[in-house]
Amino acid sequence: MDLKSLIRDIPDFPKPGILFRDITTLLRDPEGLRYTVDFFTQKCIEADLKADYVVGMESRGFIFGSPLAYKLGSGFIPIRKRGKLPAAVHAIEYELEYGTDCLEVHQDALHPGSRVLIVDDLIATGGTASATAKLLQKIGCELVGFGFIIELLDLQGRKHLPDVPIISLVEY
Amino acid sequence: MDLKSLIRDIPDFPKPGILFRDITTLLRDPEGLRYTVDFFTQKCIEADLKADYVVGMESRGFIFGSPLAYKLGSGFIPIRKRGKLPAAVHAIEYELEYGTDCLEVHQDALHPGSRVLIVDDLIATGGTASATAKLLQKIGCELVGFGFIIELLDLQGRKHLPDVPIISLVEY
Repeated sequence: MDLKSLIRDIPDFPKPGILFRDITTLLRDPEGLRYTVDFFTQKCIEADLKADYVVGMESRGFIFGSPLAYKLGSGFIPIRKRGKLPAAVHAIEYELEYGTDCLEVHQDALHPGSRVLIVDDLIATGGTASATAKLLQKIGCELVGFGFIIELLDLQGRKHLPDVPIISLVEY
Repeated sequence: MDLKSLIRDIPDFPKPGILFRDITTLLRDPEGLRYTVDFFTQKCIEADLKADYVVGMESRGFIFGSPLAYKLGSGFIPIRKRGKLPAAVHAIEYELEYGTDCLEVHQDALHPGSRVLIVDDLIATGGTASATAKLLQKIGCELVGFGFIIELLDLQGRKHLPDVPIISLVEY
């Protein structure tokens, strides 16, 4: 299936000069959703990414992280913005183009040696994925890989990620 | 499976006096996640809720809405907070305890007659689910039902919802 034909380009979002790759048109298509989840699962199995937990970042990372965990027989761990998780958290601050942002994970969600697969819809500069990796490595997790639906090759985000397998389904 | 044993109670979150029902402990458990998605799917099929689209609200509604859409062979439509969706939107404002909030859906995501199933992790007072229903009805969608993992019975949220089937897996 040609996934690119189901992904829509939106110019100048969220700000002028950015071409936003919109996956909502893919999600809306029953065959597209099914194919994407199945293909994502298959790629993880082929790459031998055996994870105890799939970790997904708020909020588009939830959309594919959760069905992927279901299909792989893993647990699902949400990574959230500051103040959203109800129990005690580990947090990491990371730099954005302007200012900083913060990601949090429950302290009792992961442990040293937990095998984790980090999933998001898209990798651009790799800032969010890299911060998530650092947060999980600080806990002592074993990072088995990354999975993205879309990879923006020009931005070379994977250069900022640890040396583990990185799966992406669609490249621009 | 006893889903309640996998849901954690957090007192005084997000503010004093509120007992928060935390599903992250359920999501983290591979068997719990699998059982919940399968049971949710089965209840929708038994209730004959045939939807073209599963609609999930940002952001915990994404966690179950997406795998449910996958399992039911429906498309998935995300409902997001103000300014997050990249293309033209329909919006609805609704009242919170203090102030108002806003939900948005892409204008070209749904059409008059689209059969929709609204999914969220939890129904409390029903404010978010009711606002989503109004937004979709304004578009002319046919609302086939609601699905929640958790229902807080004391708050009588279902009183504020349209007269369609309402599924919940766990009641408090």
